[in-house]
Amino acid sequence: MTFMRIAEAQIGEAVDAGIVGIPLDIATSNRPGARLAPREIRDESRLLRPYNMATGAKPFDSMQVADVGDLPINTYNIEKSYEIISSNYQQILVSGCVPFALGGDHSIVLPILRTMRSVYGPVAVIHIDAHADANEHMFGEIYTHGTPFRRAVEEELLECNKVFQIGLRGTGYHPDDFDWCRNQGFRVIEAHECWNQSLVPLLTEIRGVIGDHPTYVSFDIDGLDPSVAPGTGTPEIGGLSVVQALEVIRGCRGLNIVGCDLVEVCPPFDLSKATSLLAANLVYEMLCIHPKVQYHDK
Amino acid sequence: MTFMRIAEAQIGEAVDAGIVGIPLDIATSNRPGARLAPREIRDESRLLRPYNMATGAKPFDSMQVADVGDLPINTYNIEKSYEIISSNYQQILVSGCVPFALGGDHSIVLPILRTMRSVYGPVAVIHIDAHADANEHMFGEIYTHGTPFRRAVEEELLECNKVFQIGLRGTGYHPDDFDWCRNQGFRVIEAHECWNQSLVPLLTEIRGVIGDHPTYVSFDIDGLDPSVAPGTGTPEIGGLSVVQALEVIRGCRGLNIVGCDLVEVCPPFDLSKATSLLAANLVYEMLCIHPKVQYHDK
Amino acid sequence: MTFMRIAEAQIGEAVDAGIVGIPLDIATSNRPGARLAPREIRDESRLLRPYNMATGAKPFDSMQVADVGDLPINTYNIEKSYEIISSNYQQILVSGCVPFALGGDHSIVLPILRTMRSVYGPVAVIHIDAHADANEHMFGEIYTHGTPFRRAVEEELLECNKVFQIGLRGTGYHPDDFDWCRNQGFRVIEAHECWNQSLVPLLTEIRGVIGDHPTYVSFDIDGLDPSVAPGTGTPEIGGLSVVQALEVIRGCRGLNIVGCDLVEVCPPFDLSKATSLLAANLVYEMLCIHPKVQYHDK
Amino acid sequence: MTFMRIAEAQIGEAVDAGIVGIPLDIATSNRPGARLAPREIRDESRLLRPYNMATGAKPFDSMQVADVGDLPINTYNIEKSYEIISSNYQQILVSGCVPFALGGDHSIVLPILRTMRSVYGPVAVIHIDAHADANEHMFGEIYTHGTPFRRAVEEELLECNKVFQIGLRGTGYHPDDFDWCRNQGFRVIEAHECWNQSLVPLLTEIRGVIGDHPTYVSFDIDGLDPSVAPGTGTPEIGGLSVVQALEVIRGCRGLNIVGCDLVEVCPPFDLSKATSLLAANLVYEMLCIHPKVQYHDK
Amino acid sequence: MTFMRIAEAQIGEAVDAGIVGIPLDIATSNRPGARLAPREIRDESRLLRPYNMATGAKPFDSMQVADVGDLPINTYNIEKSYEIISSNYQQILVSGCVPFALGGDHSIVLPILRTMRSVYGPVAVIHIDAHADANEHMFGEIYTHGTPFRRAVEEELLECNKVFQIGLRGTGYHPDDFDWCRNQGFRVIEAHECWNQSLVPLLTEIRGVIGDHPTYVSFDIDGLDPSVAPGTGTPEIGGLSVVQALEVIRGCRGLNIVGCDLVEVCPPFDLSKATSLLAANLVYEMLCIHPKVQYHDK
Amino acid sequence: MTFMRIAEAQIGEAVDAGIVGIPLDIATSNRPGARLAPREIRDESRLLRPYNMATGAKPFDSMQVADVGDLPINTYNIEKSYEIISSNYQQILVSGCVPFALGGDHSIVLPILRTMRSVYGPVAVIHIDAHADANEHMFGEIYTHGTPFRRAVEEELLECNKVFQIGLRGTGYHPDDFDWCRNQGFRVIEAHECWNQSLVPLLTEIRGVIGDHPTYVSFDIDGLDPSVAPGTGTPEIGGLSVVQALEVIRGCRGLNIVGCDLVEVCPPFDLSKATSLLAANLVYEMLCIHPKVQYHDK
Repeated sequence: MTFMRIAEAQIGEAVDAGIVGIPLDIATSNRPGARLAPREIRDESRLLRPYNMATGAKPFDSMQVADVGDLPINTYNIEKSYEIISSNYQQILVSGCVPFALGGDHSIVLPILRTMRSVYGPVAVIHIDAHADANEHMFGEIYTHGTPFRRAVEEELLECNKVFQIGLRGTGYHPDDFDWCRNQGFRVIEAHECWNQSLVPLLTEIRGVIGDHPTYVSFDIDGLDPSVAPGTGTPEIGGLSVVQALEVIRGCRGLNIVGCDLVEVCPPFDLSKATSLLAANLVYEMLCIHPKVQYHDK
Repeated sequence: MTFMRIAEAQIGEAVDAGIVGIPLDIATSNRPGARLAPREIRDESRLLRPYNMATGAKPFDSMQVADVGDLPINTYNIEKSYEIISSNYQQILVSGCVPFALGGDHSIVLPILRTMRSVYGPVAVIHIDAHADANEHMFGEIYTHGTPFRRAVEEELLECNKVFQIGLRGTGYHPDDFDWCRNQGFRVIEAHECWNQSLVPLLTEIRGVIGDHPTYVSFDIDGLDPSVAPGTGTPEIGGLSVVQALEVIRGCRGLNIVGCDLVEVCPPFDLSKATSLLAANLVYEMLCIHPKVQYHDK
Repeated sequence: MTFMRIAEAQIGEAVDAGIVGIPLDIATSNRPGARLAPREIRDESRLLRPYNMATGAKPFDSMQVADVGDLPINTYNIEKSYEIISSNYQQILVSGCVPFALGGDHSIVLPILRTMRSVYGPVAVIHIDAHADANEHMFGEIYTHGTPFRRAVEEELLECNKVFQIGLRGTGYHPDDFDWCRNQGFRVIEAHECWNQSLVPLLTEIRGVIGDHPTYVSFDIDGLDPSVAPGTGTPEIGGLSVVQALEVIRGCRGLNIVGCDLVEVCPPFDLSKATSLLAANLVYEMLCIHPKVQYHDK
Repeated sequence: MTFMRIAEAQIGEAVDAGIVGIPLDIATSNRPGARLAPREIRDESRLLRPYNMATGAKPFDSMQVADVGDLPINTYNIEKSYEIISSNYQQILVSGCVPFALGGDHSIVLPILRTMRSVYGPVAVIHIDAHADANEHMFGEIYTHGTPFRRAVEEELLECNKVFQIGLRGTGYHPDDFDWCRNQGFRVIEAHECWNQSLVPLLTEIRGVIGDHPTYVSFDIDGLDPSVAPGTGTPEIGGLSVVQALEVIRGCRGLNIVGCDLVEVCPPFDLSKATSLLAANLVYEMLCIHPKVQYHDK
Repeated sequence: MTFMRIAEAQIGEAVDAGIVGIPLDIATSNRPGARLAPREIRDESRLLRPYNMATGAKPFDSMQVADVGDLPINTYNIEKSYEIISSNYQQILVSGCVPFALGGDHSIVLPILRTMRSVYGPVAVIHIDAHADANEHMFGEIYTHGTPFRRAVEEELLECNKVFQIGLRGTGYHPDDFDWCRNQGFRVIEAHECWNQSLVPLLTEIRGVIGDHPTYVSFDIDGLDPSVAPGTGTPEIGGLSVVQALEVIRGCRGLNIVGCDLVEVCPPFDLSKATSLLAANLVYEMLCIHPKVQYHDK
Repeated sequence: MTFMRIAEAQIGEAVDAGIVGIPLDIATSNRPGARLAPREIRDESRLLRPYNMATGAKPFDSMQVADVGDLPINTYNIEKSYEIISSNYQQILVSGCVPFALGGDHSIVLPILRTMRSVYGPVAVIHIDAHADANEHMFGEIYTHGTPFRRAVEEELLECNKVFQIGLRGTGYHPDDFDWCRNQGFRVIEAHECWNQSLVPLLTEIRGVIGDHPTYVSFDIDGLDPSVAPGTGTPEIGGLSVVQALEVIRGCRGLNIVGCDLVEVCPPFDLSKATSLLAANLVYEMLCIHPKVQYHDK
């Protein structure tokens, strides 16, 4: 089944927005299973109807949206998979399509950002996550789901002073783990700074900083609290609420969005399928902030 | 087991409040299973004790409460079931009993409202739900769980300017789906209008509008966020919190409550039984707003 | 596996902080299973890393922490188990170790408080719970998980005007159940008083009252809302949020903490293991408020 | 996703074998949910590879197999759904396609058999089930999942002395419930007659009786023991083993198979998805007994 | 709900057969939860109809069967509970009723056997179990679920040469654990002696030995293989099949049955409820071997 | 926790038998998660007691058994992990220890067999599995969980005419998939050849062929039927029974066992933990066939 039963398309077809499954999870440190997420998210998306009642967004009235299926990643080899992702993203971006990736673990953002860089130059990033994912390495390896943003900085893929990391928290290997990010120019908004409040003001501020710079949204589902998104591999308590997640995504409306991902949904740990359902909704909300989307007057 | 192990009674016995199971779920569009809800809600209600510690309500000290069992609905035919519900409700209302229904899907509210109309005239309604349930039809059928409030308006069962729909949200078939409701005079409070705030002021306002008009409370469990009420058939993210649910029900104290329902609990999708437990508590809170209930001074 | 894979130690070894499993659940009135909690909490604790990113706490840099294993309680006899707990706690306290207990049901707090009294005199208590646990008896028995704080008062184990019960709620056997507590001098903060707000001000107030009096923290996981902590034996809706739980524990920083417990996690009802994961995090946060812990400058 | 990722086709296309989803479950007496089975069975079928290692069957080498999707049944009305099933089956049969239905509850076999009759005359039936499904009515209704074979006899759809009911058992409303079947000429093989033995001899006997008469295979998953097929609505202990199920289906090789169904899989009660996986395999085995299938020499 | 929705009766009423819930599980060594079994078994029993299709038994046509509810055991004290069980059983037996107990853990069989002895003298026992339950003590305690048959021998409650233990297996504390039983005169039939064969001949032999001696049937659900009865506290692989369980119970027809129990169902570990469903069926089969039951000619 | 709470030892310590965890699952084609199996199998092994009641084996009376923990495999790289496995196994074998591996996926058997070859020469193998695991490659990769026995033959690690593959079945990519194995001299016993019978005679035959040749036992849990071992990544219906599994392992008594593994347990798909419990028992039974084990006379 395609996402929301929309049409299928081939990689490289000139659609405005493309759903792309990337079932890679061998860069996971803790619980694997994110390879099953594209299937489950598509399955739960069947409950979605076309119009966004809260915002008035009409994503299917004003642009072409298609599901290009899953990338044929190599289940046994991270670097070969990176090449497959990059070459497919190259075709997608060249065709003018804005890709919305269904991960997979967070390691997939590195080859995506590489391609973004080659087409758009260094991008702004809005990164929702419990973790900075900026470790130097994990168990000696440089390509893992805990290291992509470190690599992205080293490879100069990011417009560092337009990078926002929202929801970081939990326990760390060093008490200054987040300082490396700050030192690159990232704005780090820790989860506890978000507690008990609306994130609408934060997003207003972010939009002011980013302006019309090409912007990538990378949403790790573990940015949310485990009580609302249990189906993930590295849960950390005290995370964002669903309302805050919606405020963040809806708050991106007006930005020059060039790509989005929703990663780290781990279906084997999502017994009730609530996390996949939530993810399907969040991807729908991401579609609604595509620059071409028109809105119903409310 | 009866609800909270209270006494059994026959339909038509002159008790003040009656628990009524209505295990009908064949009007469900998506996931069936609500027929199993009366049993599960009763089962989880065994944890409840008689006094409401937060509000001081003493529902069993000042009135007679009984469980009249499940209505013998026809599992294969919606319209026949409607007749069974109406004729039983007629007996219940005539005896002076305020019924508290354990659904079943939301389609059951139509025959209930028909009977309410015949006894009380058009009623005020406080309707908590993710959906307006006011579609013209679903797949060509007029009697489904997505259409009862459209039918209720057509059949003039409602005092339309005293109808409040709280928690509506999600994706819709048309961007103006909620406008039909507003055009009938309903007050629609969308979920995103409730985010990050107490609903106590809203209820104060509602009580002011309704005054002492006979009032029916229809509570679809999917009005709540799926993270707190996963066991339902058509979940929509971004819903009300448990605290808001309690604020709404407790905020009805003082109204002229003539009936209540709690619908759309779907036990097969409620692995942890948390939704049934929540529903049992909400039904208990509904009992506490029965006009005859006395309160302990706090 | 030990908690967070820390070192093992023997009861009575002179470590600064000791994790103690107390797998007793035969004093449970409703759903048993808490005997399995120490194992599951330790299992989920493997995800934790040493530093507290939000507060800067460095619990392992400045003190010795060890896991002393499970106490060899008698699975068939409550009173014999109480003696085993008391005699082991005596050794622990005498060695200067601050014990962090993994329950077990809440009945274990009575022999713990007895030993605390013998070493420190009557203690201040911060008690997070849905229930006051101050019944006179349950089904005629005086030693159960619903009675320890009644016994503790009778045995003069508590500095009653420095006892705080946070999160009480639900239905009760009598409308004045909480008044007994208030009459002893306890400060009762009901759950509905906490809704929709930060508990940081409350903790500031509590710290002012307690000063440097020896303080015990007893955390019943059912103090939290069932939507965030479903794996417990006596869930009550409308409870504290995870954020509030963290505010309470972190708000204890600066107090003279002499012991902590985390009780009533019931793994058979925690299908997703989310409650055990949450409990492991809360115990970690408790370690961080040990008086010897140093903090990273933020 | 299509069954086994095979090609899609339209109803009425001239393929040799067609997978047909029939998501009807409103004729269920006990636990609904079979409407979700076609989706889940297709999902689990992705594990299947083309060749049958045990029998050597090569179903895709010698005939065209396609998935024609789900029939657009009316979710709210049994009789309207029957008409939809019949008219679609008419097109399927006329095109020369052998349909393999994914139910849905067992009520769907009645409109299927009606169409079979109109094309082939009265058919032989191999019916695996815990129940005879030959009640006169259920709760006063004549079209339910407990009555189709009674209706089929009344409507003269069956070659009664070539009907075999295998696996019947459990508790009944009358001690002579199975006698009605025997009186029609059916051969009833109760489950306890199958215990502890191979069914290969039985199938040899059945093939002898049926000869080359057009034969329909109707497989209710509850024919199997609940320990191997828990995900069904009316489980009865003491049922057939998986090995016996395979012996029955493989034993049909050589018969003039004109259609098959696999019904009563109920995914909400199939937590581990084992029943859906089993069903997918059984449907594959049914494909392998299509008269056109060639076999690898073993 | 009563078992199979039969009538309720008071303890001591002169019915022929009585269902008795005994929700005691504090004598459990490993996983508690059997206290929840009576409720769950009754709940699953709603699927049962009155007649036994395989054997022709008509238990409700020829005798009075009632559900006397749960005994008010003391949840905190084993010995007090024993007294409660004994005194209630005394009333039951004196009234001429044959009790069918829904455990609870296996420790309940000791007070039952004590009462049986007082009324009938030492009884014959058919004991299905993975364990001999004849330990001298467990962790120093003499009244536990691993010791009742040792106590029963010591207290001379058994006609030892008419005691049959079927299904024993697994790992033991001593390699000669079963020899103590054999030395008392018990016939021990280990599980591996039952593999791959019908138990009909064994039961024929047992009936020959017992003759018309008063006989008690004690069925620990863990006698069955964990793959068919996962919901139990001390599972051991390689156990009896469901078919063998039915052969054993049905093979008791003709014996002078004075009481039966079905123990050690542990619902928290029975996610799919398959074990409770199985237990409900086995209790029904036990009812069918009550000496007063008439059979339909087959 | 160690396996069965036995002592810990270091790799290379001179114990007779060593439990070795190998949490590698990145060579899995379908569902990952086997990395979590060593932990879960150890956890469930706590139920095991020292003596084998059915066979009389006394594994801990006559030899030293220890748990050497988990090998520090590289979670992101198969070939690096192979080197880690080989070098650790080299130390284990040189010390005279017989290793019992807890997988992990089946790819781990290749580096194990390489080390076995270097110490013992080509080994005999008893391989229980649903799949031959002898593919030339999977998705172009040569080191995966579907290819180890092809590699083992190419690298001349096996005494091919003393290799037995038991339980093969299911669907295949080619109808002659198993012929490659037969052409190497392997004896392939397909699952359907095992149906409805004891495997004791087969094992007698196997022992005759192998004699005293060094023998390795590789047990893929998916050799068993999914109804008894649902927690695995590539389930195939119609597999071996638990009884047959026990017959195979017990039938190896008397062989010159030099190593064993139990692989492909996948805990995220083992909701009830029944598969891990089964695996723990099977590993215990493997310990019992270590050549040094003494037996109690039965």
